[in-house]
Amino acid sequence: MADSGSMSEPGRSHHPLAARAASTQDAALRERRAAIAELGDALRELVGLASATEVPADVLRQVAAQARQAATRLGRQTRTRTELPGADDLAGGFRMYNPVTGSGSALAPPLHIEVAGRAVVGTCTLGLAYEGPPAFAHGGTSAMLLDQLLGYAASAAGHPGMTVKLETRYLAPVPLQTPLRLTAEVSEVTGRHVTARGTLTTAADPDTVLVEASGEFVSLRPEQAARLFGGIRPDATDPQVAHD
Amino acid sequence: MADSGSMSEPGRSHHPLAARAASTQDAALRERRAAIAELGDALRELVGLASATEVPADVLRQVAAQARQAATRLGRQTRTRTELPGADDLAGGFRMYNPVTGSGSALAPPLHIEVAGRAVVGTCTLGLAYEGPPAFAHGGTSAMLLDQLLGYAASAAGHPGMTVKLETRYLAPVPLQTPLRLTAEVSEVTGRHVTARGTLTTAADPDTVLVEASGEFVSLRPEQAARLFGGIRPDATDPQVAHD
Repeated sequence: MADSGSMSEPGRSHHPLAARAASTQDAALRERRAAIAELGDALRELVGLASATEVPADVLRQVAAQARQAATRLGRQTRTRTELPGADDLAGGFRMYNPVTGSGSALAPPLHIEVAGRAVVGTCTLGLAYEGPPAFAHGGTSAMLLDQLLGYAASAAGHPGMTVKLETRYLAPVPLQTPLRLTAEVSEVTGRHVTARGTLTTAADPDTVLVEASGEFVSLRPEQAARLFGGIRPDATDPQVAHD
Repeated sequence: MADSGSMSEPGRSHHPLAARAASTQDAALRERRAAIAELGDALRELVGLASATEVPADVLRQVAAQARQAATRLGRQTRTRTELPGADDLAGGFRMYNPVTGSGSALAPPLHIEVAGRAVVGTCTLGLAYEGPPAFAHGGTSAMLLDQLLGYAASAAGHPGMTVKLETRYLAPVPLQTPLRLTAEVSEVTGRHVTARGTLTTAADPDTVLVEASGEFVSLRPEQAARLFGGIRPDATDPQVAHD
């Protein structure tokens, strides 16, 4: 199930006092998102080096102790799985921790996506942490990137939905530590069902397709959305980042 | 491209002196692998909490500084993408940093795989770091888990290969923080091509399929393997973990 990682600002009130309060809220939200992205950057670097390091075992154990200490600090205040992150804007499609695109996610390369006419274009570079066969990306990583990009293409075309089918064809291995370029476009819309197609290439050679994929997405009926997500509530632990 | 995450011990010599040297090497290798897994555990916890935390922005920035410091320590000695990790045993299918199964990978849940007769069974629990739609796993994560498991099934049946096609069908969303069970089995072998099929369910309700997949894998011809992996060499930075 892909979901959009697009940026969008929350709606602002036009009443002067409300606007002032909203402005303070916005500044706090921007500051929080910047801090989340800073931590995301640091963790991506740490996670990447953890898959590449050859330092002695005792140093690995010392770093593990540091990581546990850092985890304890983050664990002092957490959301549950029925609460949205305080810094997210689900309606606006802004999700800080998306495991493919989220600037706050240590799992995400992250994939950067832009709309280019009818197509969407994604760029990323995969480090050693994504290694499957020696020197190349794990096939599942390519599927994950393409699922996200195809879903984004469907959303960008006005048909957001959940993935119902993803077909990925691997034509050649995907090199690590090499700038990649992914493109996707909606190819068919039938009622609530949308099909998008996409490719993955290196940025240097966009004509040689390494992986291609097609995905089918379906928009939820209101009763399905209510059943799946009716229990989700905005995070209430940090009122300063709540917004309309 | 899936690759096996199976455990296998390196071959031991039977000459007494060689056996003694091998035993010291084995002890060092076991110690190194244990330290890698300890760091992997700590990083998975840290990464998971980073997607769940609601601590104030200044704490996020302090933890980011700690993470950068830890990364610097790991970065003092690293492999390149043409070097294998010192603790890996590629021929034996043992890979510490596989992004799905590796105990040393902060990206991996990790998925634990066991052979059960003709089938292979995988188990894992996905934390908030794998969230796509609120409270459910990202569709790409399910594809990644299944790619790995299907490839493992092909390997376990004696037909290791690279993924050429993966088709994933999503029947229902996959809940986070819930023990999952995946199964896969080879369904067809035609020359160098092997097809495997698999499913993903919750452990509590293995009869309700949430995601199903089929994958086609192809074994490399020697000249293909030489072209793709001929430049890969065992890591030479830590002789104590070299083994036959």
